[in-house]
Amino acid sequence: MRHQVCIIGGGPSGLLLSLLLRRAGIDAIVLEQRTRDYVLARIRAGVLEQGLCDLLHEAGVGKRLDAEGFVHDGTLITAHGQTVHIDFKALTGSAVTIYGQTEVTRDLYDELDRTSAPIFHEAEGVEIHGADGDAPYVTFTHHGVSHRIDCDYIAGCDGFHGVSRRTIPEGTRREYEHVYPFGWLGILSETKPLHDELVYAGSDRGFALCSMRHTHLSRHYLQVPLTDEVEDWSDDAFWDELRRRLPQELADTLETGPSIEKSIAPLRSFISEPMRWGRLFLAGDAAHIVPPTGAKGLNLAASDVYYLSRALIARYAGDAGLLETYSATALARVWKASRFSWSMTRMLHNFPTEGDFLRRMQGAEIEYLAGSKAAQTALAENYVGLPY
Amino acid sequence: MRHQVCIIGGGPSGLLLSLLLRRAGIDAIVLEQRTRDYVLARIRAGVLEQGLCDLLHEAGVGKRLDAEGFVHDGTLITAHGQTVHIDFKALTGSAVTIYGQTEVTRDLYDELDRTSAPIFHEAEGVEIHGADGDAPYVTFTHHGVSHRIDCDYIAGCDGFHGVSRRTIPEGTRREYEHVYPFGWLGILSETKPLHDELVYAGSDRGFALCSMRHTHLSRHYLQVPLTDEVEDWSDDAFWDELRRRLPQELADTLETGPSIEKSIAPLRSFISEPMRWGRLFLAGDAAHIVPPTGAKGLNLAASDVYYLSRALIARYAGDAGLLETYSATALARVWKASRFSWSMTRMLHNFPTEGDFLRRMQGAEIEYLAGSKAAQTALAENYVGLPY
Repeated sequence: MRHQVCIIGGGPSGLLLSLLLRRAGIDAIVLEQRTRDYVLARIRAGVLEQGLCDLLHEAGVGKRLDAEGFVHDGTLITAHGQTVHIDFKALTGSAVTIYGQTEVTRDLYDELDRTSAPIFHEAEGVEIHGADGDAPYVTFTHHGVSHRIDCDYIAGCDGFHGVSRRTIPEGTRREYEHVYPFGWLGILSETKPLHDELVYAGSDRGFALCSMRHTHLSRHYLQVPLTDEVEDWSDDAFWDELRRRLPQELADTLETGPSIEKSIAPLRSFISEPMRWGRLFLAGDAAHIVPPTGAKGLNLAASDVYYLSRALIARYAGDAGLLETYSATALARVWKASRFSWSMTRMLHNFPTEGDFLRRMQGAEIEYLAGSKAAQTALAENYVGLPY
Repeated sequence: MRHQVCIIGGGPSGLLLSLLLRRAGIDAIVLEQRTRDYVLARIRAGVLEQGLCDLLHEAGVGKRLDAEGFVHDGTLITAHGQTVHIDFKALTGSAVTIYGQTEVTRDLYDELDRTSAPIFHEAEGVEIHGADGDAPYVTFTHHGVSHRIDCDYIAGCDGFHGVSRRTIPEGTRREYEHVYPFGWLGILSETKPLHDELVYAGSDRGFALCSMRHTHLSRHYLQVPLTDEVEDWSDDAFWDELRRRLPQELADTLETGPSIEKSIAPLRSFISEPMRWGRLFLAGDAAHIVPPTGAKGLNLAASDVYYLSRALIARYAGDAGLLETYSATALARVWKASRFSWSMTRMLHNFPTEGDFLRRMQGAEIEYLAGSKAAQTALAENYVGLPY
């Protein structure tokens, strides 16, 4: 088989890139290791920057987003006895849209189906060959049959554990990692969201986030020790602990119910440089992971896809310049968003080993934030997304 | 002897408080452990917020400040290959004034002399008695003679090592401390300042600050390991290292010369709560220390003196309310300024044990700062001083 671009990974990055390229007349194929159902069952982020919403529209999949997404003009940050409303819209002119990553992925698959874009699910043993030369190709096995795809370029959209980043020789790439001493225990429940906006709550017992997917589907998180297991947390224990971490007036209104999903994820900051090796280009989690505080993971994948789609489209129109600068361009935004995710994480979580001084610095930061339009604007402009 | 207020410490806080109280008809006496020459020889901060300048004018000592101080409308931050000009004036409407703490102290002493305000130098063995009761008094020895001062209130302006804070029982106060893993090596030299504004320089070799006192008197600093001694650093070694930490175009213009003072100070954040115990009120370094990054030390002492002078003046006019809230009011600003000093220190220094991730976060912060008016405004409003 020959395709112009071989996209490894059928999550939102790979699917979105595929659609954007096809709309520009570029022939791209997607290889995904898992089944479609598996990919669609993953529960992930749900806060979309306007840049991602614009890209989805450009890819032809904005209709359901417009109909079902909730535009949030702000968020609530409550910690150290202060509750600060960050009014994104007033401070920056922009907002974010609440729409689950699962829904994004479903819309992208529907559009892939509609346009009969080529995709392999259950592509096993994917390997990248010759990415540092002029004739790269990808091999894999599908339902027992070996395949080879020759291509001009390879897009590595296969996440943190994927083969793409590992294809770049270790001496060529440099990895930066920061592991946080806690995880997030998340539950999904068919309950009313706590508030009409997300609530980020710092407390002496640890951080909590009250988020949502729909009017009757809530996504709540608790900071927990890395040693905790999902089995340690009954639904009742979760709700009790969440209530304790919220200001009384919010805790009193919390609607509880059985969880329909429950999981613990560690928090990590990770960046691998460069994001390009010869004809292989990384996008999204394949190159970088952010802690979920600030909701930047999916949005960063989207800005990578934005830069990479522009670069490939320009290349096939005769100008390879953007491909040459892709890694630097994408990384500049990645580092800034990583900084924001790191600083939001630092501001709102308990760091048990760091002592009282940091705790009071966190309190002072909230106090300052509460009184400073500049600080609120800085937070808001990062939250709604720095410009592409 | 009886005085309404006994001020312990004849540094800038104590002297300024004394003058402000006297102007309001309140009888205050100052006790200073050292000689006047010793106090005047101390080389300290030199960046004055407008609030402090206003207080100096109110105390009747603004004339030389106006004539000889340099108004700085901005500062230069250079790190990670970026040079960012923070335009205080454009971003906040305010500026800072460059005028050495030594000059402030001299002006205050001159005014004390002019108004014949009572002060003891070389007051030894100062002890505070009965501060938690209704009849406090202070004892000390002066040139071999024992003295006792009965008073209504005691102002503890005697710095970090003074007796005032230690008079508050340990179970009553709570101390927060953060020690940074480096110090600042500072030199004073009769050379032209590097630039017409201060230059804060982060580099892979460590932080440097190029400051000034006059048109031909410079104050430069280098981040150094805590194990370094002044003797380890010849003038030539200092200038060579400073040059290496500056961007080439600035390094090329650096004027060097013999140092006339050279010292190393460790960096520390320290806050003691509360700032009031009965009739004893702490102000300045007696209650809190900030690292020098961001120049908040003297300015925080000034805001304490502002609050305390208002509170005492109101008290003698019959309203003790501000005295009751003094500690909370002063501490609210102290914590915010401490946060700023801590975050400026974190942004610009090398933390040898923290690894590459923090280093890259610092770089991302500078990149973000360079491109964000909100981030620049937040920095500027803290630098020129949050409102009293």
